[in-house]
Amino acid sequence: MIELGDVEAAAKRLAGVAHRTPVITSRTLDERVGARVHIKAECFQRGGAFKFRGAYNKISSLDEDALARGVVAYSSGNHGQAVALAAKLLRSRATIVMPEDAPAAKLEATRSYGAEVVLYDRWTESREEIGAALAAERGLALVPPYDDPLVMAGQGTAALELLEDVPDVDVLLVPVSGGGLIAGCSTVAKALLPECHVVGVEPETGNDTQQSLEAGQRVRIDVPHTIADGLQAPEPGALTFEVNQRRVNEIVTVSDEEIVTAMVFLYDRMKLVAEPSGAIGVAALLSGKVGARDGTVGVILSGGNVGAARFAELVGQ
Amino acid sequence: MIELGDVEAAAKRLAGVAHRTPVITSRTLDERVGARVHIKAECFQRGGAFKFRGAYNKISSLDEDALARGVVAYSSGNHGQAVALAAKLLRSRATIVMPEDAPAAKLEATRSYGAEVVLYDRWTESREEIGAALAAERGLALVPPYDDPLVMAGQGTAALELLEDVPDVDVLLVPVSGGGLIAGCSTVAKALLPECHVVGVEPETGNDTQQSLEAGQRVRIDVPHTIADGLQAPEPGALTFEVNQRRVNEIVTVSDEEIVTAMVFLYDRMKLVAEPSGAIGVAALLSGKVGARDGTVGVILSGGNVGAARFAELVGQ
Repeated sequence: MIELGDVEAAAKRLAGVAHRTPVITSRTLDERVGARVHIKAECFQRGGAFKFRGAYNKISSLDEDALARGVVAYSSGNHGQAVALAAKLLRSRATIVMPEDAPAAKLEATRSYGAEVVLYDRWTESREEIGAALAAERGLALVPPYDDPLVMAGQGTAALELLEDVPDVDVLLVPVSGGGLIAGCSTVAKALLPECHVVGVEPETGNDTQQSLEAGQRVRIDVPHTIADGLQAPEPGALTFEVNQRRVNEIVTVSDEEIVTAMVFLYDRMKLVAEPSGAIGVAALLSGKVGARDGTVGVILSGGNVGAARFAELVGQ
Repeated sequence: MIELGDVEAAAKRLAGVAHRTPVITSRTLDERVGARVHIKAECFQRGGAFKFRGAYNKISSLDEDALARGVVAYSSGNHGQAVALAAKLLRSRATIVMPEDAPAAKLEATRSYGAEVVLYDRWTESREEIGAALAAERGLALVPPYDDPLVMAGQGTAALELLEDVPDVDVLLVPVSGGGLIAGCSTVAKALLPECHVVGVEPETGNDTQQSLEAGQRVRIDVPHTIADGLQAPEPGALTFEVNQRRVNEIVTVSDEEIVTAMVFLYDRMKLVAEPSGAIGVAALLSGKVGARDGTVGVILSGGNVGAARFAELVGQ
């Protein structure tokens, strides 16, 4: 388990390194939803997504020898970029295991941070095994994408900042994949605002956490096919599930079409760039999946690494 | 002529009404350009563009009788939206004359602010004549898009805020259409930083201000065909040209292709939504049209009202 103090310690490590991202509002969104909505815009975070928070918190805790040997991570994109960037800032070296079909912009961005990229086929190979093998062979420290106390605590700083700016959130919406972001954010929310209703949002085809919470144990599903390429973990993490079982009130799901509608709304009306995974909280609101009438809503817009070409494809569909 | 005091007076009227938009930087952009670039993101202004500044400054100066009769404006889009919004906030009524081929998102947004929209054919009809006729028939106050001291002064508040945040700008890049934005901004820049190099940016096909400054008098060209639908004024304004002749150092031009490249860069790397007219300053930088090596550069990103569907079309071309 992690506690508020772990997130507060992460916030101290991240001060002056991570961006304090803006909280953005829209009269039009408020009218549509019938609530006061506050969007934590992690698209403006370093590396374009919240992932930098957890990666930096984890890597900055390594000792000098471990930093000198380097770090390894497996990632569908944003976590890889975040680890590459954090490693560079901390004068370490990153090796990133990425799926062959990851968006070109994410591959390019990861390499541009100076990392070595190792590709794998996500339909037949296990990224966990490849990452573990690289860690063993080269003596690298593994930076897990979510199932790690320091990573979870780092991600929670997004909610800590949001609640500093908006201290009266009734409903908090957080995207869910392996569960690291919502583990950190729900820890903050329940500590500071015990009555806050913490809602996770998953793609319809990738509702492993929803199924797991209903079953009372971790459920593994097939790798989901969804446009939300950051939300394709097939089962919750062991550590994240421990936290989320206690602190998440509800999981709702949205369709790919609802995600595209939210991406277009954010672009047209709020001038915000959201990747599919990042838009999923707003998709849940716009599609009426979450009751928030007359309340104050916080939404983590988790990232903006979609690429103009991919956005054009999605809008044209 | 307008002076710094006019812009400062506008800033007081706009305080608490217009958004103080963020100034955004990017390590990637700085590396590409070889300079420290600061982007004033007017895409986050009310109505999605800088135009609200001038419109509100003008309309808030009308007396009660004039406000009760209402206002009229002719506009390719953003000015119309701005006048509609400012009129609504000031409890007046707006009639907006818009070209039939204006982007659907702009027509819709203008109507959503409660304005009456009157359409015209911009290849055969004169919006000035239609606006003047409506003003005479209905007793409406005309809010000119640029050729007005209060409008120019209002637009200058964008540069005033930028120079408060970044007090050492060596080069200031401003989009140019009728010349109101750059008249206000150059007035501020030359008053506060006499050595600042003020550069206007026009589409290649719409370089009426460039030609006019070279000729020493206003030159009228055919209505330019360009994707920058906010920069299609065929000649400089009489009042704006007076100001810009004295205070603008240089005009550079960019192609539609360079504008799209800049829009994609802003989306992919900075998560900023820019309409074609809004991206033109960054286009001038990325295409190397402006020498800024090792300097501090300010860029007015004038607006973000492009619409996801139109952006997808432009990216797909």
